[in-house]
Amino acid sequence: MLFWNMTEPNSSVGIVVPQTAHFDTQIALKGGGSLPAYELVYETYGTLNAEASNAVLVCHALSGSHHVAGYYADKPKSLGWWDNLVGPGKPLDTNKFFVIGVNNLGGCYGSTGPMSINPATGKPWGSAFPFVTVEDWVNVQTRLADYLGIRQFAAVLGGSLGGMQALDWTLRYPDRVRHGMVIAAAPKLSAENIAFNEVARQAILSDPQFHGGDYYEHGVVPVNGLRLARMLGHITYLSDDAMAEKFGRRLRDGGHKFGFGVDYEIESYLHYQGDKFAGFFDANTYLLTTKALDYFDPAFDYNGDLQAALARAKADFFVASFTTDWRFSPERSRELMFGLLHNGLNVSYAELDSAAGHDSFLLDDVHYHAAMRAYFQNIEV
Amino acid sequence: MLFWNMTEPNSSVGIVVPQTAHFDTQIALKGGGSLPAYELVYETYGTLNAEASNAVLVCHALSGSHHVAGYYADKPKSLGWWDNLVGPGKPLDTNKFFVIGVNNLGGCYGSTGPMSINPATGKPWGSAFPFVTVEDWVNVQTRLADYLGIRQFAAVLGGSLGGMQALDWTLRYPDRVRHGMVIAAAPKLSAENIAFNEVARQAILSDPQFHGGDYYEHGVVPVNGLRLARMLGHITYLSDDAMAEKFGRRLRDGGHKFGFGVDYEIESYLHYQGDKFAGFFDANTYLLTTKALDYFDPAFDYNGDLQAALARAKADFFVASFTTDWRFSPERSRELMFGLLHNGLNVSYAELDSAAGHDSFLLDDVHYHAAMRAYFQNIEV
Repeated sequence: MLFWNMTEPNSSVGIVVPQTAHFDTQIALKGGGSLPAYELVYETYGTLNAEASNAVLVCHALSGSHHVAGYYADKPKSLGWWDNLVGPGKPLDTNKFFVIGVNNLGGCYGSTGPMSINPATGKPWGSAFPFVTVEDWVNVQTRLADYLGIRQFAAVLGGSLGGMQALDWTLRYPDRVRHGMVIAAAPKLSAENIAFNEVARQAILSDPQFHGGDYYEHGVVPVNGLRLARMLGHITYLSDDAMAEKFGRRLRDGGHKFGFGVDYEIESYLHYQGDKFAGFFDANTYLLTTKALDYFDPAFDYNGDLQAALARAKADFFVASFTTDWRFSPERSRELMFGLLHNGLNVSYAELDSAAGHDSFLLDDVHYHAAMRAYFQNIEV
Repeated sequence: MLFWNMTEPNSSVGIVVPQTAHFDTQIALKGGGSLPAYELVYETYGTLNAEASNAVLVCHALSGSHHVAGYYADKPKSLGWWDNLVGPGKPLDTNKFFVIGVNNLGGCYGSTGPMSINPATGKPWGSAFPFVTVEDWVNVQTRLADYLGIRQFAAVLGGSLGGMQALDWTLRYPDRVRHGMVIAAAPKLSAENIAFNEVARQAILSDPQFHGGDYYEHGVVPVNGLRLARMLGHITYLSDDAMAEKFGRRLRDGGHKFGFGVDYEIESYLHYQGDKFAGFFDANTYLLTTKALDYFDPAFDYNGDLQAALARAKADFFVASFTTDWRFSPERSRELMFGLLHNGLNVSYAELDSAAGHDSFLLDDVHYHAAMRAYFQNIEV
């Protein structure tokens, strides 16, 4: 499986332009709400073949977007979040595949979400935006596939929350996906995962600038809540080891300051990440997305029996986990892998040594990418 | 080491009354500040023998206090935080030992702290209260020992931050302690530990009701920041397994609510713990104490060489850790243990199977308490 043509050139998909698809058919959502119409922002890389058999859908995680690869003409540094994976000659080779990235419904990068104008009021949806779930996102993605003329994906993949969407595709649309690729994910959140999400949500909900979710009309943003949520998130994305190696107990200015400013490098890093995130991400999207994470549980309607829930799948699977990922540990991926195997499905499982924790799925570790490359090479189109 | 007299009765020290010691000698603090005078609130259990050779000091952790054992006459449910350990016939047997609990300087249970009146202004110290460190606490504890006529402790012990104080005693006052008992602690915080503390601090510091630390004069309390800090803390006190067992994905009312109230039992638990804590604990004490945790590092003045730093110790040691404690993992206790052993010191080390995570040190696990009992039985007085 680890064959890798070392001479293959890895280059960028280059300049990309996001596109927008309008959908005027009402969509009913799992939480009981609905949207009369909506837009999805997406990007594509490579060319759809005549049989439309080479399409690959990349699903994004909590803070990701449709911008998976390449860069924008006016922003040369705006590399897509999985640019190291997707491109001509890269593991997900755009010379072979037609790759799609899409911003989820409820997102804040252009798809219809809480920041969008509610046609009924002429004001941003805010707190009135309906709850969305992983299943809703996948339902909406099937409409985008229809719109693009794609009956069946060669593969649907994603890391973390993106992996959950890939898994859901294989369970509820088994005839529309040939390969499910579930990376650094879990079949459901643990109590500890939910706990971290809840602290992050409480930080936002209790920020006086949140205004019950309708902060847009007050001209403010719950910057502080978002900042705390992101700082906390970053702790769970890294491993204890990665933090020790990257920051350790290094002091920013040599000595202890005996004040509540920054003493340690790790504090400075968290402040930077928190401030940056709070400057562009929408708080309502954050809230909705963490709830979608919490609720995801394919076994819920199967009396908690994961194996029974997975019986619906027909796809082949690639499942990967990272040794130091304590947010979604290898144990959780193995649970998924065994559940799939017990249903007689083909599963390639890679448990990868990496010090970088949950974030590993975004990095271009040589073994990880070699495994991905080999798997994609074996997909027939 | 695991001998345990099963017939020994375990009973309570009964009704206890806190006492207050006044100190009128100025104390210079490590952070550069000083206090002209201060009070310490403490409790004692058992009787100091004629040679004053049976005294044991119990140091408390972040949210602990001087109230280690027994209960208050008017509050029968006000059991001390280590009541399962301390009492007649209990592992730390008050028939043999004279046990002292003391609220640390900067605390909020009666010892001089940010809530106390600053004699220079007639108002609460608030933001003007000086920074305190583990070393300052230990220095102050030596004064309490002098005041009580105790030249040398039979043992100084504590869990978590309390264990760090016990360790500091053995290093800077090697002639004043015969046994150092360091439980569920670490020789210093990791980057991840500091990161969690920093998120908790930022939650408090950014609460609009914090008022730069002088919230007392505004008649408010940064309830929300404290609540977030405590919710986050509780995640790190439990283990993933303990949370899974105790709460799992159990829904409070059966179904998903598609709202931002409580869906899962774990959320309810965190809210309860956060609300309770925010109702009584002082935010400035929380801030100061987490900084004391971050700064503690006996090897700091030894070029990071822990073994060299430990060479000052003369005591015998009891070091204990718990398998599922991911806040201060067994690896960190082993680091301490090996450092002590390489200095030729006597070390008893117990690595205890427990599902309860960091909180295990507060529980009465049978093997843990048997190990403690045996160690205390072997201490000569």
